Amino acid sequence: MTRAKPFRIDPKLDLLLERVVALPRERVWAAWTQPKHLKKWFTPAPWKTVEAEVDLRPGGRFYFLMQSPEGEKFPNTGCILEVVKNERLVWTNALLPGYRPASSGAASADDLVFTAVIALQRKGRGTRYTATAIHKNPDDAQKHAKMGFHDGWGKALDQLVALMKKK
Amino acid sequence: MTRAKPFRIDPKLDLLLERVVALPRERVWAAWTQPKHLKKWFTPAPWKTVEAEVDLRPGGRFYFLMQSPEGEKFPNTGCILEVVKNERLVWTNALLPGYRPASSGAASADDLVFTAVIALQRKGRGTRYTATAIHKNPDDAQKHAKMGFHDGWGKALDQLVALMKKK
Repeated sequence: MTRAKPFRIDPKLDLLLERVVALPRERVWAAWTQPKHLKKWFTPAPWKTVEAEVDLRPGGRFYFLMQSPEGEKFPNTGCILEVVKNERLVWTNALLPGYRPASSGAASADDLVFTAVIALQRKGRGTRYTATAIHKNPDDAQKHAKMGFHDGWGKALDQLVALMKKK
Repeated sequence: MTRAKPFRIDPKLDLLLERVVALPRERVWAAWTQPKHLKKWFTPAPWKTVEAEVDLRPGGRFYFLMQSPEGEKFPNTGCILEVVKNERLVWTNALLPGYRPASSGAASADDLVFTAVIALQRKGRGTRYTATAIHKNPDDAQKHAKMGFHDGWGKALDQLVALMKKK
């Protein structure tokens, strides 16, 4: 399998969270790819991730079920696109598992279609963590920003670090 | 990169063309992945493929410009998902290059969103050629069938074989 080139970010279309965290990248990778970990950090409290599935291969299923503080449930099914262990994970909800195009009509009006690129680089004893959300148009990018992308993904990352430090 | 499992076909959602052709699979692979070949076989005559681009890597661009007998032009931009040399090529127009979700609003009403899986297996001195078009719903699959998927992709394959035998 040919390796992909780095992504070129389009500031009008893409949202970016970049931080250096005090965890080896293997621990960050484990947190992102093992459902038992995902369920503990993936959703900023008081929201919860009550179910998670990761079929870690191109074309495989990336699924999580979020639950609001009021108990309302929000399922998300996506397709994994790239798996480079300890380096890069790419998934999208524009496709279902097996690369099947997703029915945008099936999603609620609040659902956003995006591709997530999680990139991990060694940085001393820690990891440079870069999460990019790639959208189809500026409206979706702005909507995602207003929904609290930076705050939400940042808080979730704090939860990831707190969880994986204990191990 | 982890290898994907074979695809499970859903007869309500997927269209399939399977044939054994009298060409080694390396020749079929070359025809699918080199623009100079694509331009000569990809569109059933009297339609033409007047431009083609293939950036052969996951996330890379798969582009072609078809021209009707009347001279009307129909561009198609997709994203390559899997590249297993001489074995399997997967691309979709649900994503743009770099895995960006495609704007379905930008496509004309006639445009169909689908993922194409081209699988090649050695079969004696020839190749078992399997082309699968994966759709999001039964309506799209039926529409693609009525547009002449089997006849069109079959004729294009005849053109591919005629072209690559000469070389």
